[in-house]
Amino acid sequence: MARWDPDAELRLRTAAMELFQAHGFENVTAAQIAERAGLARRSFFRYFPDKREVLFAGSEQLPVAIAEAFAAVDPGVRAWPAVLAALDTIGAQLAEVAVGSAVRREVIAASPELQERERTKAAAITAAIQAALEDRGENSATATLLAQTGTGVFQQAFTRWVEGAGTHSIQDCLAEAATRLRNALSD
Amino acid sequence: MARWDPDAELRLRTAAMELFQAHGFENVTAAQIAERAGLARRSFFRYFPDKREVLFAGSEQLPVAIAEAFAAVDPGVRAWPAVLAALDTIGAQLAEVAVGSAVRREVIAASPELQERERTKAAAITAAIQAALEDRGENSATATLLAQTGTGVFQQAFTRWVEGAGTHSIQDCLAEAATRLRNALSD
Repeated sequence: MARWDPDAELRLRTAAMELFQAHGFENVTAAQIAERAGLARRSFFRYFPDKREVLFAGSEQLPVAIAEAFAAVDPGVRAWPAVLAALDTIGAQLAEVAVGSAVRREVIAASPELQERERTKAAAITAAIQAALEDRGENSATATLLAQTGTGVFQQAFTRWVEGAGTHSIQDCLAEAATRLRNALSD
Repeated sequence: MARWDPDAELRLRTAAMELFQAHGFENVTAAQIAERAGLARRSFFRYFPDKREVLFAGSEQLPVAIAEAFAAVDPGVRAWPAVLAALDTIGAQLAEVAVGSAVRREVIAASPELQERERTKAAAITAAIQAALEDRGENSATATLLAQTGTGVFQQAFTRWVEGAGTHSIQDCLAEAATRLRNALSD
């Protein structure tokens, strides 16, 4: 049995990002990632089902995190401000654990397969927001629209935050994107 | 050589929809679709690369149709009203050629693979709207948000139109979704 290593997952993620960036996602194997992280090939598969999922580690926790973020918003808050409050919470959590986000974006942008996976992740975020809004009593049609809109605002804010490399807080980026959308729709 | 048949594509689409609904997408083969449409198996592949694409016939034309719809909108119209005007045009075109849309929705809802493909289609619509807005001089951040928002409004309007089975025009459904979103964001 290999010794348990608390840093192994992070080392694998970092190694994967470096290799994907240098050689392209398609040209890197799980064995190469493990080797660069100083681990045996089989160790890779204790942490990730395949090399693609290294880029989506933790995203399976997003729906639960979103539900919890909504649960912390006062029930009297109306739907859209509740979405923005929940996204603030989620954004702060993601900002803490984000690893190599700028490189990750580049790697995904270069691969249709990864873009597809990224859209599946976005759809899971949208579905979680929609469910939370319906739990708050919002009708389904409005919940759907606000969930899609919220996801779009969140994606833009996160992109800006990554591009700004920490010069703006994720909260400022969210507020900016929400204001931008509101102004554009009022035109 | 098989005789050219102007109705063959439509017969294949109709046959596919009936079989997918009855047996599930995964359990139907291209050969079965061809047989039900009264065609040889090889004829299927003259019209579609695989059984999945039967459900997405014509969608490769959407980006060009969207660009043309925007080109017909007066350049003085502001971004969001321009999006809504272009979507009105696209909606009217789709309403004319939509085949078995209600069944199509059910079939897609039952298959993660088809949902993934449907998201790829939605992403192509979003990208086309974004490009059209940037061509009109809109900045990239606003174009991205409005393109995602426009796609969401369009999807909801189209769903409503399909569910209403023609009791409302697609234009009415679009106006309703746009108003619903605007009200929800003003709350």
